[in-house]
Amino acid sequence: MDNSNEKPYVIGLDMGGTNSVFGIVDQRGTIKAQVVISTKAYPDINDYVKAGVEALQPALDLVGGISQIRGMGIGAPNGNFYNGTIEYAANLAWEGIVPIAQLFQDALGVPTRVTNDANAAAMGEMTYGVARGMKNFIMITLGTGVGSGIVVDGNIVYGSDGFAGELGHFVIDHTENGRPCGCGRSGCLETYCSATGVARTAREILSKRTEDSPLRQLDPDKITSYDVFKAAEQGDPIALDIFDFTGKVLGTACADFVTFNSPEAIIFFGGLTKAGDYLMKPLREAFEKNTLNIFQGKAKLLISSLNGSEAAVLGASALGWE
Amino acid sequence: MDNSNEKPYVIGLDMGGTNSVFGIVDQRGTIKAQVVISTKAYPDINDYVKAGVEALQPALDLVGGISQIRGMGIGAPNGNFYNGTIEYAANLAWEGIVPIAQLFQDALGVPTRVTNDANAAAMGEMTYGVARGMKNFIMITLGTGVGSGIVVDGNIVYGSDGFAGELGHFVIDHTENGRPCGCGRSGCLETYCSATGVARTAREILSKRTEDSPLRQLDPDKITSYDVFKAAEQGDPIALDIFDFTGKVLGTACADFVTFNSPEAIIFFGGLTKAGDYLMKPLREAFEKNTLNIFQGKAKLLISSLNGSEAAVLGASALGWE
Repeated sequence: MDNSNEKPYVIGLDMGGTNSVFGIVDQRGTIKAQVVISTKAYPDINDYVKAGVEALQPALDLVGGISQIRGMGIGAPNGNFYNGTIEYAANLAWEGIVPIAQLFQDALGVPTRVTNDANAAAMGEMTYGVARGMKNFIMITLGTGVGSGIVVDGNIVYGSDGFAGELGHFVIDHTENGRPCGCGRSGCLETYCSATGVARTAREILSKRTEDSPLRQLDPDKITSYDVFKAAEQGDPIALDIFDFTGKVLGTACADFVTFNSPEAIIFFGGLTKAGDYLMKPLREAFEKNTLNIFQGKAKLLISSLNGSEAAVLGASALGWE
Repeated sequence: MDNSNEKPYVIGLDMGGTNSVFGIVDQRGTIKAQVVISTKAYPDINDYVKAGVEALQPALDLVGGISQIRGMGIGAPNGNFYNGTIEYAANLAWEGIVPIAQLFQDALGVPTRVTNDANAAAMGEMTYGVARGMKNFIMITLGTGVGSGIVVDGNIVYGSDGFAGELGHFVIDHTENGRPCGCGRSGCLETYCSATGVARTAREILSKRTEDSPLRQLDPDKITSYDVFKAAEQGDPIALDIFDFTGKVLGTACADFVTFNSPEAIIFFGGLTKAGDYLMKPLREAFEKNTLNIFQGKAKLLISSLNGSEAAVLGASALGWE
């Protein structure tokens, strides 16, 4: 039975500083068609929207045209759900406040929403991933930085201004030893548990200790979290200690986070999760050790089930169903 | 115009370890009648409910009987909103899990809800106090312990199990210097910013320093936060430093808390708030200094506007309107 009120697809836009990926997605989270444009190539936002709509056209034709699209969701740096805007995004060419949702809504004629990358990831997990059916969870994205999306009673927490859920800038070391952060303060979770945080830990441990390690063959300033992972795979004790430290810091922070919304799960997403048990084992141990008694054994620590390369588009698209 | 569907009153029950205060409250937050029974006098929960209902009868008669009551709200230690229960409350005689909401609902015939003290305070503030009209705020109760109630999109955050919002057990010092807490861990906010935490700080500072202070005339083990307040009123530098330290710890923690739900306000309630600017000035300074740039100048730091002795009953009663 065909129900013509139920349009079967949404558009997801994963907007990065370099490229923008548009996907047309069905209710099961299958990407039916995907197109890419350069974000950087359009210093005028109107040109960007025009280019995006043009690039989408063949993909739309493939699924039966715009009449089959229920809505569009955009995951963008500094995306503000309440205002439908991108606000002062450092890695994008457009300055100030960009009314991105309205621009696409006008161009395509479908309801359009925007949020930031981490909230989009949380939406994606709730709509298509391991958080299906969950009403209360925390999403933590471990990439170049650390982002977060918090879900309470089935809804993303946007707070009074649309910017809630910045756990990457939760200060976990208030002492004078806290690592300087790009935000201008010190000791933020992001300076320890992002990919760049892992590289900082590597440099710190390598300079403090004297054992041999494959990591010593690399220029310390160019060590990446992937280098640390490769060394851990070889059984390098220093690399293992780097992940131990990272997991311990993150697990301890998560034990504090659950005092807020007592979630069913904390879900980790992003490149660092590829470290698997090197990261997750110390993370789980620190979490269990530091969790308040009434919360013990409750929140599961999970890794995202979405395919990494598709996850951002899926997450953005999930907003289109709302 | 009389609308007979709108029952004009609710019952609020503030259940403490010693006494239980029942109030009949109108929509403006005026307590029309109030009765008290001993909590401790009834080791059997059925006797307690029976005594409460009997004590309430004259108060109910005063407002026109039970037909005028829309619902009942209970603020109780370890009250669980989802289950309508009190669960393993250390300071109450009843062991295990007590189905308190159902018992009163059966006895009185009105919808009855229960929550913990701090959530009740948040409900009270939202219904009758400074949080009227606010959709996102954090309530922090500064009593013998530190409690919290978190409001997102106009609703209390209960989390997956009804126990969300335990910011008193947020660990603010993960070093080996963290103060031992009653929860079995160390460094919890409560060990610094409760009334007992202030007394601990007093003992610590008095033992480390040598200046004279009116606090030195007291048995260190019996110093209270009120003693510290009185000394501060006399201009005692040690007492002022005790509040400086307390405010700094609390303000720094609050700067982290806003990364969760980007609230319109953080509202402080309880005995310690009587210290006024001795506490609030360093608190505000630490909050402003430590807040992430995107949240700066947003959350107001407020003191509860509810009359202290009535606030707990009002808070509980607010649940009765739901």
